[in-house]
Amino acid sequence: MPDPIGRTRWAIAEGYIPDGSTGPAPLHSHETACVLNAGDEDADVAVTVFFADREPAGPYRVTVPARRTVHVRFDELEDPEPVPRGVEYASLIESTVPVVVQHTRLDSRQAELGLLSTIAYADR
Amino acid sequence: MPDPIGRTRWAIAEGYIPDGSTGPAPLHSHETACVLNAGDEDADVAVTVFFADREPAGPYRVTVPARRTVHVRFDELEDPEPVPRGVEYASLIESTVPVVVQHTRLDSRQAELGLLSTIAYADR
Amino acid sequence: MPDPIGRTRWAIAEGYIPDGSTGPAPLHSHETACVLNAGDEDADVAVTVFFADREPAGPYRVTVPARRTVHVRFDELEDPEPVPRGVEYASLIESTVPVVVQHTRLDSRQAELGLLSTIAYADR
Amino acid sequence: MPDPIGRTRWAIAEGYIPDGSTGPAPLHSHETACVLNAGDEDADVAVTVFFADREPAGPYRVTVPARRTVHVRFDELEDPEPVPRGVEYASLIESTVPVVVQHTRLDSRQAELGLLSTIAYADR
Repeated sequence: MPDPIGRTRWAIAEGYIPDGSTGPAPLHSHETACVLNAGDEDADVAVTVFFADREPAGPYRVTVPARRTVHVRFDELEDPEPVPRGVEYASLIESTVPVVVQHTRLDSRQAELGLLSTIAYADR
Repeated sequence: MPDPIGRTRWAIAEGYIPDGSTGPAPLHSHETACVLNAGDEDADVAVTVFFADREPAGPYRVTVPARRTVHVRFDELEDPEPVPRGVEYASLIESTVPVVVQHTRLDSRQAELGLLSTIAYADR
Repeated sequence: MPDPIGRTRWAIAEGYIPDGSTGPAPLHSHETACVLNAGDEDADVAVTVFFADREPAGPYRVTVPARRTVHVRFDELEDPEPVPRGVEYASLIESTVPVVVQHTRLDSRQAELGLLSTIAYADR
Repeated sequence: MPDPIGRTRWAIAEGYIPDGSTGPAPLHSHETACVLNAGDEDADVAVTVFFADREPAGPYRVTVPARRTVHVRFDELEDPEPVPRGVEYASLIESTVPVVVQHTRLDSRQAELGLLSTIAYADR
């Protein structure tokens, strides 16, 4: 296998976790950062979440094992604090080894089918 | 914190703000440039809007504070002039410090849920 | 104004123009390559269209004036030949000056609102 | 013709092939990697598929002839093994010559019209 594909720092500028109390019908979607680690070394990933009017939350720690892919769901991040609902956010994803990150909104009514998907921004 | 992630010049080649008079039903979506400033210095952002058949509008000035994200709604840009409705446009986003820009169309009927999202083009 | 933003060669790997005879209901969408020329020199743009089982079509010639944006609709390309309907295609977009290209599928029922949008691939 | 556009290594971090048994209604979409080979040499393409909890599958071998585009459907990959249904996956696409890759989810009810599309990540 050649050197691993990817970068070690990624950003997603758009994010939103609905607040359960804002509408009459439940929303059936959730946002994920899909992380691919195609290399032979486990990736220690740190996710920092940014907001419009408060200091960033995190870092949230996730391990993506060698030769595996992990879908990080933002609504399941709990430590050091849950990601606030009903507000816009953005995220920074830093990894100890090269990975590839894609931002996807999944529709949980349809067997995890994606609703939209965007490659994240990578810079190194 | 390491050096800030991002670039200082971005472009979005696609944009459209519906004209309220073109259809029977109100449209419930709006376009945004989601800007993440993950660094420790405030970003002074200048947005220039391009059209098919007239000179560009702007620059529109927006501040994205350090460690914050701002969703710039094109239909709320007012100074030096509102962005024309019912015509196609494109935009150039220049920042004094590195930022990350994503173009998203939001559906305001569903608690700001995105309908489509595209990473903008960055060149430096 | 600084040096113009963009690249001179872009590719869109996905495309499809429906064949009017394949379904009972008319399809109300069309594909475009949104081209932004933020510079001070007109762009002479050549579009080449690739297929699964025949030689490429084109080049189709389009001018994007200085400081203007043009939405190139693939179903309106006629010279040297119309783009075949009902088959998958991909496109290569070459410009004499730097431009930015985004691939968008528009829904013509909703005032030209985009259905999906993807930044094209640029390499120089 | 100039040197061919593209890269030789691409990654798609998000993927999902529905399991036919998970819902009452059949799903009418499928995922593809749209590959454009704009050059004058055939491309030998190897697709490796990564999962959350098992070793990667593949490589799957596909040829994209010179000056042609091929839509690789993940649900039609059979050799060395079918891609598992009902689980998340990611993919690595390696080519002997430069190509351009876009990830698209197609809706087969509407004449192969795309539902979402994302440029893949390229690194060399």
